[in-house]
Parts: sequence; structure tokens; C-alpha cells
Amino acid sequence: MTNFTATKSMFHIPEGMIYLDGNSLGPLPKTAAARVAETVTQQWGEMLITGWNKAGWMAQPTLVGDRIAKLIGAEAGHVMVGDTLSIKVYQALASALEMRPDRKIILSDSGNFPSDLYIAEGLIASLDRGHELRVVAPEEIEAHITEDVAVTLITEVDYRSGRLHDMAKLTAKAHAMGAVTVWDLAHSAGAIDVNLAAAAADFAVGCSYKYLNGGPGAPGFIYVAPRHAETARPALSGWLGHDAPFAFEQSYRAGGGIERMRVGTPPVLALAALEAALDVWDMTTMAEIRARSVALTSQFIDAVEARCPMLTLASPRNPNLRGSQVSFRFAHGYAAMQALIDRGVVGDFRAPDIMRFGFTPLYIDAADVDAAVNIIADVMTHDLWDKDIYKIRARVT
Amino acid sequence: MTNFTATKSMFHIPEGMIYLDGNSLGPLPKTAAARVAETVTQQWGEMLITGWNKAGWMAQPTLVGDRIAKLIGAEAGHVMVGDTLSIKVYQALASALEMRPDRKIILSDSGNFPSDLYIAEGLIASLDRGHELRVVAPEEIEAHITEDVAVTLITEVDYRSGRLHDMAKLTAKAHAMGAVTVWDLAHSAGAIDVNLAAAAADFAVGCSYKYLNGGPGAPGFIYVAPRHAETARPALSGWLGHDAPFAFEQSYRAGGGIERMRVGTPPVLALAALEAALDVWDMTTMAEIRARSVALTSQFIDAVEARCPMLTLASPRNPNLRGSQVSFRFAHGYAAMQALIDRGVVGDFRAPDIMRFGFTPLYIDAADVDAAVNIIADVMTHDLWDKDIYKIRARVT
Repeated sequence: MTNFTATKSMFHIPEGMIYLDGNSLGPLPKTAAARVAETVTQQWGEMLITGWNKAGWMAQPTLVGDRIAKLIGAEAGHVMVGDTLSIKVYQALASALEMRPDRKIILSDSGNFPSDLYIAEGLIASLDRGHELRVVAPEEIEAHITEDVAVTLITEVDYRSGRLHDMAKLTAKAHAMGAVTVWDLAHSAGAIDVNLAAAAADFAVGCSYKYLNGGPGAPGFIYVAPRHAETARPALSGWLGHDAPFAFEQSYRAGGGIERMRVGTPPVLALAALEAALDVWDMTTMAEIRARSVALTSQFIDAVEARCPMLTLASPRNPNLRGSQVSFRFAHGYAAMQALIDRGVVGDFRAPDIMRFGFTPLYIDAADVDAAVNIIADVMTHDLWDKDIYKIRARVT
Repeated sequence: MTNFTATKSMFHIPEGMIYLDGNSLGPLPKTAAARVAETVTQQWGEMLITGWNKAGWMAQPTLVGDRIAKLIGAEAGHVMVGDTLSIKVYQALASALEMRPDRKIILSDSGNFPSDLYIAEGLIASLDRGHELRVVAPEEIEAHITEDVAVTLITEVDYRSGRLHDMAKLTAKAHAMGAVTVWDLAHSAGAIDVNLAAAAADFAVGCSYKYLNGGPGAPGFIYVAPRHAETARPALSGWLGHDAPFAFEQSYRAGGGIERMRVGTPPVLALAALEAALDVWDMTTMAEIRARSVALTSQFIDAVEARCPMLTLASPRNPNLRGSQVSFRFAHGYAAMQALIDRGVVGDFRAPDIMRFGFTPLYIDAADVDAAVNIIADVMTHDLWDKDIYKIRARVT
């Protein structure tokens, strides 16, 4: 049994804040500050260039990848950390497309995060071989997995609504139709009990600054199924993905397995923070996290609906169809969210009208949910959001 | 006049070390540790998600880009920081190639850093439209800039020999032949007096962990000439390069100018270190840095040649043809370099036989050069490198 009081004590949450935005940026794990400081002063400062060997910087992306692998049901040695999620989408999609040279359709849905769609558009324009990005409604995607689909590019948990796709079922359908799957786990890793190996997923990508609490700008990751690991061609063929980077050969030879998905120099400082952030996962299991997350999101939905009739649930009511976040629609959602943040309840807003609240049992408990709902009810019932100051849009929402 | 004693005092150099590897990884600027710690504890820890606005994280890549722009003669507002150098090479090359759709040759030279060549190979394979990577000897590159060349992909300063290309001359030739130029400034930015605008360069890319001292895994940067800024198509079309990222539109619309060269989430911790590292440049000018660098490298060459006849100069003797590093060939170069590192003279080794020493006036002075040469002469004259322990190759050389 996980001691959730103990996991909560691992994080720094500012006094008076109920942080329901870990689905956007996880809070600071208390050990991360010291780990980063040590990397800066003891490693960079004292070891300088020798840190690549002595401090093991070069091995970090694989070691951290293996720790993430455990949380997403991936085989050890098949997850590489680095770059950003968007870059990892590009890598996965480019490799996957080449595995189906006779097909031209990339299938995605309108609930996918826009960057995935943008990256696909950009790749299609570069390839200039008549590929088509077919974007359908999320509930129709299964029906659209047909024999002309080259690659399915699907985000498992919808960033706006929290709607959860059935990865195993859609992957099976894709394989039955001869398509290759790319799964985006941005809102899954650390949030729900993903099992890439059991689902027989082909490629998966994700980020580490949300439920994995790696910090602002923490790196992305990519998974390549073992059966593709030695054949997938890396489109972004940088030197550290070479089989022998320090031989400085004139021509590229892909490194073994997941090593080829490295591109350039690893982000050492960010990896130090992420490494520290991953320690908390040794104290729990994804199954326990998921069970408690379902309890928290259900509690939140019930209480908000009981007290705030002006908010319309935008997330699935059935917890089996929902990730670890709850969204409500409200016409003045942006202003309402600013009013909440002003009162210590931190969620975020996604255009056009989504108020988004993330729940992670690592540091959110039932008492936090109660306290948050009290503040939300107060703000909504008394229109406390209706002030000019709450209506000024910031650069980042 | 620059006070080089003052600039030297800005860096932490371990006691007893003469650090001649700033061309690979710059040393720790003393203010960087505090800046990173503040970013972790005060910004990430206290502001959490609101740091994107309150701490200005989202603006960092442009602001830091402008500071780098001053060091490379780029127009303000035309340098974007992010990702890694290899990714930036991909971006620049992909955009540049599209500007010459009727041409198929990417011209580079054998002195280019392998990652640039690998990235070009990978892009060519993805495009699959018959492009050719033509790699010639560095001294022959000018003659090979002909009317069939689409893009020249050239690293200004050779990573092995320090040989310096004439950017203005080669760019003029490229333009006369109708080719687009991509310049890699990995060993130029902060090392020599680059003037991209004066040379009329089209694209340039670089990294910030060498002479800019941004730390291990510090981000890359990309420059797009103002005349191309609104037309270059970003191949890696991630959401933060969108014209309105937080509108979450379904289709990509490139952001204005250099903004489109953003891809994913900025590396906030790395940018904090880099920002601190750039402060030292307010104390000097690139012209003064260059003059003193020439003096230091010339002093080093003269002294080593006088005392170590077994070492063969691999760098140009004429300082006008040389960057800010000096390389010597030696059959047992790897072992010799380990013996030097063991005695506090830190350079590095590049296969097959190059011993590489970087000089930056920011923290290296004439007395350091004398002291280093004494140790080198001792190691070489008495074959102190000839021990088994110095011959074991580490992962990173």
C-alpha cells in the first residue's frame, strides 16, 4: 500500500495553494533542487568536460528512459529521453511512415494536441509525396482505421477533455488493417496505467514535465517497440545516435536499437531534475495511482456538479473513459480560472472555454479536493470572476 | 579595454587546472549556480505553472537569442535559441533546400562536424528526391560552389584543426552561383569575430555550451536572415512556432519571423544557466577577444614547437586562417591527452590522432599558456603518456 502522505511530503507546494495543474507542469520535488545544484557545482564546476564520463552524463538518457519505461509498460532498453515531445513526435512519425511506403494516410483525431497535428503537417510538406493528414472526431477514429491508413497518430488522453482512448483496442485494429501506431502519452505517463508492451504499440512518445514532474522544459521521450528497434530509420540522424559517435566517421550508421533515437547533446541539467523527480515512483505503483486518481476525479465531479450548475462537465463521466484530469466548460472560463488562481486553486484554461483541473494522488488528497471545490463554488456562485483584471489574457494560458 | 583579470574571475576553474577545453564545454560561470538555483526554487518551486508568464520563461528563447545575436553580427530579433545544434542544422538545411527546389546538391567539406553530414544524409533519405551530399576537401570547397549547388552546409571553424573558412568570400561565391548558405558556428560563436549580416549569410546555427559557457547540454540556436524570415518554411513545425500557440488551432500557421523556428517547450533550466553565462560578454568585445585569442594561440604554437618536436601542428600557422584552438597530431594522442589531463592540463582528443587545445581569453592568460606548455613538454619529452592506464578509451573522448 502506498503511503500517500509520504509521497505528498516529497513535493514543495507553496503554502495556501491547491495545485491542480500537474497535468501541465508538475510541482518541484524537494530533492530536485539539491540534485540540480550538485550537477551544476560539483559536476559541471569541478569535472568540466570529464563529467561526460565521470558523472555519467552520456548514459543519462538511457538510464532515465529505463525508469520511465517501468511507468508505461515498456520493455527495458527501449525508451530514450531527450529533445522535446514535438521533436519526438517527428522522429516517431517519420520512422513509422517509412514502414508503410505504399500508404499515404496519417490518421489522427481532433482531440489530439495541436502540436502533433502541426508536426505531421510539416513532415507531409517536407516529404511532398502526397501524404494526407486525416483528422476525424475522436469517437469516430476506430471506424476510420482502414486499410489505406499508414500510421495512426493518437494522443491517448485528450488534453482538453481528459477523454481516454482504448490503446489496446485501437492498436489491435490498426494492426489488423496493416497500420503502424504512434501513441502520444503526454497526459498518460504517470497519470494512468499504460502498458505499451501488452498493447503491442509500435511507437510512443511523451513528455516529462507533466505527471512526471521533471520541471519546466524537461525533455521528451520516445519508445520504439523491440521488433522495430533495429530497423526503424531515424530521420533526425544526429551524431549521438551514430553507432560510434566518437569515431567521427564521415557517414551515418545508426546506433543499436533505441540508441539511434538520440540526436544531439543530452540536456544534462534538465535530466538531473528529472532523475530526482522520478524517485517518488519507487514509493508507489501505477495501479494504486490510477485507483486513487479515479476516486479523486469522481469526488471532484460530484461535488462541483452539486454546487456549480453553471459549469458543464466536458470530461467523460465514466472514469474508465477518463484520464487524470477533469474539465468543465464555462463561457467566461478564462476569467474564472484567473479568479481561482488568485485564490490559490491553480488549474488552467484551454481555448475556447475549457477550465482544466489535473489530479495526481502523489500530492493531491481528498481534503484538497474538498477545499478546492469550496473555493470554486464561492467564485462561481458569486461571480467573483467578473472583474476586468481577470479578463486580460496572458501570453501563456 | 577589457579587463581580462576581471573576466577570468567570473569563472570557476578548479584549483590547479589549466582548462584548454572550452571549445568543447565551457567552465562554470560563478553566477550560473545561483541563477539556476533561483530558477528551480523561486520560479519553478513558487510560481509553478505561472512561471511561464511571471518569470518570463516563454520569452527567454528570443531574449537570449538577441544576446547571442550581438556576438555573431546578427540583426536583433533574428536568432532563436532552443533544441540542440543537430536539430537546428536540420531546420536550417530543410528550409534552405526548399528555397532551391530545382537543385539537388548539398555541398559540404570533410572538415565539417560529422553530425552536420549525418543530419544531411538523414534529411536526404527522408526527402527521397535525389538530393546528393557532396563532400569535398575544405581547401577545394570554393571551387566546388557551382550553379548546381542548392545549399552550402559549412562549419566555419574546423572542429579538428581549427582551420577557418572565409565566410564572406564563400557566401558571396554561393550567392553568385545561386546557392543558399547554412553556416555552422559551433566553434565560432564567442571565439572569433563573426559578422553574419555583413557576410549576408542566409542561415546560421550554433551551440551554446562551448565558447558561450552555457553548461552541459545547453541549447542550440538558429539565425535566419531578415530577408528570408517571413518566407522560410519550418520543417519542424511545432506548436510554439505557431502564430498563436495558445489558440490551439487545428492547422499550423507559421509564427512571425524567427518565432517559427521554435518547436517545443523551451529548456528553462538550461536557459537560466546560459543567461547567466552571457553576462560576461558585457565586459568585452569580440574584436578584443579575437586579438587576444590570436596572441595566445600563437604563443602556444611557438612554445610547443620549440620544445616538442614529436608533435606535428595540425592547425594553420597563419592566425588569420585559424579559429581559437590549436591542434597537434601525435600517433599516441589519446594516451598523451589522458596524461596531460592527469596533470591538470585539460584538452581533448579527436580521432584518429588529434590533440586539441582551446584558448579563450575570457579565462586563459599568457601565464596559463606558459604553465601548460611546461607540462606538455614534460609529458612528451619523457614519454609520461606511455602507461596502460592512459590507453583505455572512455565512452566520450
